Amino acid sequence: MKIFASDNNSGVHPRIFEAMRKAGEGRVQAYGDDEWTARADAAVKRLLGQNARSWFVFLGTAANVLGLQSMLKPWEAAICAASAHINTDECGAAEAVVGCKLLLTEGDNGKVCLDACRKMLWMRSDVHHVYPRVLSITQSTECGTVYGLEELRDIKEFCRENDLYLHVDGARITNAVAHLGISLAEFAEVSGADVISFGGTKNGLMFGEMVVFLNPELGRDFPRIRKQNMQLLSKMRFLSSQFVEYLDNGLWLENATWANNMAVLLRDRITPLDHVKLCFPVQSNAVFARLPRKAIDKLLQKYLFYIIDEADSPAYPAGWPMIRLMTSFNTSREEVEDLADAIAKAG
Amino acid sequence: MKIFASDNNSGVHPRIFEAMRKAGEGRVQAYGDDEWTARADAAVKRLLGQNARSWFVFLGTAANVLGLQSMLKPWEAAICAASAHINTDECGAAEAVVGCKLLLTEGDNGKVCLDACRKMLWMRSDVHHVYPRVLSITQSTECGTVYGLEELRDIKEFCRENDLYLHVDGARITNAVAHLGISLAEFAEVSGADVISFGGTKNGLMFGEMVVFLNPELGRDFPRIRKQNMQLLSKMRFLSSQFVEYLDNGLWLENATWANNMAVLLRDRITPLDHVKLCFPVQSNAVFARLPRKAIDKLLQKYLFYIIDEADSPAYPAGWPMIRLMTSFNTSREEVEDLADAIAKAG
Amino acid sequence: MKIFASDNNSGVHPRIFEAMRKAGEGRVQAYGDDEWTARADAAVKRLLGQNARSWFVFLGTAANVLGLQSMLKPWEAAICAASAHINTDECGAAEAVVGCKLLLTEGDNGKVCLDACRKMLWMRSDVHHVYPRVLSITQSTECGTVYGLEELRDIKEFCRENDLYLHVDGARITNAVAHLGISLAEFAEVSGADVISFGGTKNGLMFGEMVVFLNPELGRDFPRIRKQNMQLLSKMRFLSSQFVEYLDNGLWLENATWANNMAVLLRDRITPLDHVKLCFPVQSNAVFARLPRKAIDKLLQKYLFYIIDEADSPAYPAGWPMIRLMTSFNTSREEVEDLADAIAKAG
Amino acid sequence: MKIFASDNNSGVHPRIFEAMRKAGEGRVQAYGDDEWTARADAAVKRLLGQNARSWFVFLGTAANVLGLQSMLKPWEAAICAASAHINTDECGAAEAVVGCKLLLTEGDNGKVCLDACRKMLWMRSDVHHVYPRVLSITQSTECGTVYGLEELRDIKEFCRENDLYLHVDGARITNAVAHLGISLAEFAEVSGADVISFGGTKNGLMFGEMVVFLNPELGRDFPRIRKQNMQLLSKMRFLSSQFVEYLDNGLWLENATWANNMAVLLRDRITPLDHVKLCFPVQSNAVFARLPRKAIDKLLQKYLFYIIDEADSPAYPAGWPMIRLMTSFNTSREEVEDLADAIAKAG
Repeated sequence: MKIFASDNNSGVHPRIFEAMRKAGEGRVQAYGDDEWTARADAAVKRLLGQNARSWFVFLGTAANVLGLQSMLKPWEAAICAASAHINTDECGAAEAVVGCKLLLTEGDNGKVCLDACRKMLWMRSDVHHVYPRVLSITQSTECGTVYGLEELRDIKEFCRENDLYLHVDGARITNAVAHLGISLAEFAEVSGADVISFGGTKNGLMFGEMVVFLNPELGRDFPRIRKQNMQLLSKMRFLSSQFVEYLDNGLWLENATWANNMAVLLRDRITPLDHVKLCFPVQSNAVFARLPRKAIDKLLQKYLFYIIDEADSPAYPAGWPMIRLMTSFNTSREEVEDLADAIAKAG
Repeated sequence: MKIFASDNNSGVHPRIFEAMRKAGEGRVQAYGDDEWTARADAAVKRLLGQNARSWFVFLGTAANVLGLQSMLKPWEAAICAASAHINTDECGAAEAVVGCKLLLTEGDNGKVCLDACRKMLWMRSDVHHVYPRVLSITQSTECGTVYGLEELRDIKEFCRENDLYLHVDGARITNAVAHLGISLAEFAEVSGADVISFGGTKNGLMFGEMVVFLNPELGRDFPRIRKQNMQLLSKMRFLSSQFVEYLDNGLWLENATWANNMAVLLRDRITPLDHVKLCFPVQSNAVFARLPRKAIDKLLQKYLFYIIDEADSPAYPAGWPMIRLMTSFNTSREEVEDLADAIAKAG
Repeated sequence: MKIFASDNNSGVHPRIFEAMRKAGEGRVQAYGDDEWTARADAAVKRLLGQNARSWFVFLGTAANVLGLQSMLKPWEAAICAASAHINTDECGAAEAVVGCKLLLTEGDNGKVCLDACRKMLWMRSDVHHVYPRVLSITQSTECGTVYGLEELRDIKEFCRENDLYLHVDGARITNAVAHLGISLAEFAEVSGADVISFGGTKNGLMFGEMVVFLNPELGRDFPRIRKQNMQLLSKMRFLSSQFVEYLDNGLWLENATWANNMAVLLRDRITPLDHVKLCFPVQSNAVFARLPRKAIDKLLQKYLFYIIDEADSPAYPAGWPMIRLMTSFNTSREEVEDLADAIAKAG
Repeated sequence: MKIFASDNNSGVHPRIFEAMRKAGEGRVQAYGDDEWTARADAAVKRLLGQNARSWFVFLGTAANVLGLQSMLKPWEAAICAASAHINTDECGAAEAVVGCKLLLTEGDNGKVCLDACRKMLWMRSDVHHVYPRVLSITQSTECGTVYGLEELRDIKEFCRENDLYLHVDGARITNAVAHLGISLAEFAEVSGADVISFGGTKNGLMFGEMVVFLNPELGRDFPRIRKQNMQLLSKMRFLSSQFVEYLDNGLWLENATWANNMAVLLRDRITPLDHVKLCFPVQSNAVFARLPRKAIDKLLQKYLFYIIDEADSPAYPAGWPMIRLMTSFNTSREEVEDLADAIAKAG
């Protein structure tokens, strides 16, 4: 089976693995009192500003949930898109761990709708309702789209005006930044993000994400939050050394750019096909398309990918489910060409 | 100010108060080891079947949340209408206390939509999603409507087919049953409810609701759930004696019927008015209507009630917010006539 | 059966009941937007200082737990006596609701031991341990003893020096203040309490306690904490009117003084008996004593009270369990004399 | 600095690293649907019986807490030694995540005292107290001691008689089994363990522990518990492949035996010294000893280890704090000799 199901189906980038190997030599202090962890935090500061403070956790769900726990009390709420990972794919972790409510908006292309967000603020008037305190966006979104600079500026202004913290689920923030052609620091500045879940696993790491606090006040209790929520690795150097290699030597951008390019290549190859309809602009490393059920079944014999929506949509032909095809740092041009050919033939 | 804001603006029915006074004589064992509590549970069994087991809590939010806690683990979910009290008016208690997620459907008239519920069951296939385990309905609904017998049968069948527990937020179940003209036992049988939050406060009690388990298995841990969640009154007789009077002597039905009748009277009086548009069928003790903003402002000078929705709705004239007018067990015919006259004049 | 098991076996003081009756007239706004609630808070300010802010909850467990939730995050801890109600008698509510850990000390007479408390502060050095943030004392204690002024001054100094908040479980604070012969304001000043769980139920109310914030910063989120944790009574006037009567007219002190005096009378009567050994100084409304098992069994045929400790204690004869005898606001002199006679005869 | 602070200061065993490297080739399904995960579970079944079911988590705290969550509701409690890791070193995770209370016993040598456990069972009689449901033991203990077969049989009988589940914190279970000279299956059988937190990180893995359910009923919900609590690694093969190498080829026993032997060597070398007093029997890979403060200070200049208890103990000379010296799979004989020499000279 050839796998395009998710960017976490890929293994580890060889440079990452080599960095881990080197970090493993000798005996060092546990729990992050080691040189790799210090170097990784320094790398974050270089990329995101001297105010930034980073903490490592195992996975994206933890980065999101513990980021939210740093910003929210149980009687407060985060507003997010209905399609957000924190709402759909974390088995209710935000509710169970933080105790908070998620308030859902339905924008286009996996994005939040600020008008809808604004309408939720009436809840603040009254103790019977949770208090909206955080806006959480996903960059790039679960639809593979990317908030543009203008959209980010609007979000920043909206949050400042309404005293909302901004959380960014950045499981694929590197893909988004690569697409926008800006630096991480620019993203931080333009968006006004308070806390970023900064992904690594989906872009070549073995495991590991960071919670990056751009608002240092919010991060004050994070060390104990992380420990209590079972995210403090004892042999921390095996996590932080990955980020040292990832951040210090441009690997993050190189990998993300490649994955994005492969998605664009795939898009370009299948866009002309009559039996393929793209669903969202391709702005990161995912291609969403609707195809006839029959074509999908043919493809599933040789390729592994997810059917995202079995239901019909009024804007598309009936009987054409939506599928998702993901590329990653080590998807080869040949693999994409092969898939594109197969899609063409499945029509 | 004349108050039609909510049925909890009313005081206590004199018979209830007298029952409490009598129960207060002498020294008795605390925490429910007293005769009133035993008598109240016996009354519940007479009305809802010998399988029924009732536990007293202070208020409706507690009945709902602790009922849900008896049915749900944090990684499971309850499906409910977006307008449900557990979703909108309990300050996120279900999420904070149970840790569970609420999955929202949007039916008509404040009811759940079974088709939408069915579509949520795909989540069960995969650990990334919460597991839908409970369907929660509100009877009568937050729109003052009542699920009919046919609807309840469908709900029962849907729950049985899909291995869902049925929770009924019955803060106003007495109003619903009075409207349907059936007994409480019939309601239990037809709906197949597993757990009912059985209200009292809104229908003449001073405070107090019951969690009634019709599925005894689910109630096994309830005594400790109640204690741990701060709902075990030491001087319990002052709660249970209210229910003895309420249930044993038909007061629940008498009060609910009166409140319903006053809502119907109000509806009949204002339906013919050109500047009033009713929003939902009047099936319990609430009348929802849209009126011109100006008329509402005039009325607010002498009457207290809630504007439920400031926004325009396509089905109604622009600039006509939605208001809610509630009657209760001690709303007099004269008060309703007076309000109806005022509405007529405000046009 | 004649009941000396607990002060919550008593009913409601007639003046309290009458105040509730009056408050019940007419229709008023719900959830505390009423005159009684405003008057009750004003009464608290008169008694405890203009900085004090009071919130009503249903019962003592809620006052304790929600007071702690206002002071603690889940990774922080409260230090308390092992015998404290929050540790032994609230079914783990602090752990379940706040998520925090309780750190136990073992002082004499149900009191905390400051030396032991000091030794716990090393935990602050390291994320592997919870962070001690609160000291919680019970006044009067679960042994019926009262912290004296000198002890309270030491506690205040200890908390200030070590940046600990002071929580007072004051389920019986009125009995303690009556014993000390000081005003409530003096108690607040001398102890430096940040938050007091201020009891009512055990001293003549039907139900209801207050969380009193003397440190206003800590109380900022309390309204939503209370709502989310199911402690916001809709018909609030029936709770606050009790406190108006209780606080405005000296009833709290009158009742507490009476209950204390009855305990002293009992103590005086049974102290000379050879088959009775008192366990703690009698400083509030409880008498703890050890008697031969046989004597206890005889008494239990006509009197209801608790055996607190079946086990032998080295300081007392073997086979003499410890019992607790409690008086309350309406324990009569005759009842005490009758009990004392029975104890004498049981020897 | 030469490090004897903890067994998690060591890096990764080369065979483990090589197994991870091989597992990293190619693209595979995420979240455990891969061959290494299947092989690892098969290995567990071979070692612990066909009933055993294993789930991988990142670290020991997670294995403990989520194991407890599988056994406990928030109103239930686990009994454990006061020195247990779940009580002292997990930043209150059990309380925060499970919501449960830990009930503490104080046995000798870091073990539970069954007599003290038995005395806690009275709590079951009454809703005011948490319900003891689990006994949690640590094998080997935090004092480096090991429950013997007779002790384990007593524990099994005690749990069966009293309807308690048995949880084993086995962060160092391999060291214990190596010491006892029995198989893992024998340990499971003799102890009657329901759930084992099975450690790997401290014995040569990079990261990763297992929750092993020997009572399959208890594990039914574990997949969602793990996901919701942020312990489901997407690139699971990098965790499970470690366990394949660890379990299939005897590496677990080889490493543990070596570490134990190095501790015994150290013990043998320092026991004769007048300025060293051993504190506990050396039965795994830790040596606890008391030395004069001055000797400790000298050693700390060249060696890293923890002072476990600064306070004096009546059984030892004053001014002799307790230190802990830990060996691991890659502690060399020369390192131990060097340390022993240094200790000898520090006297």
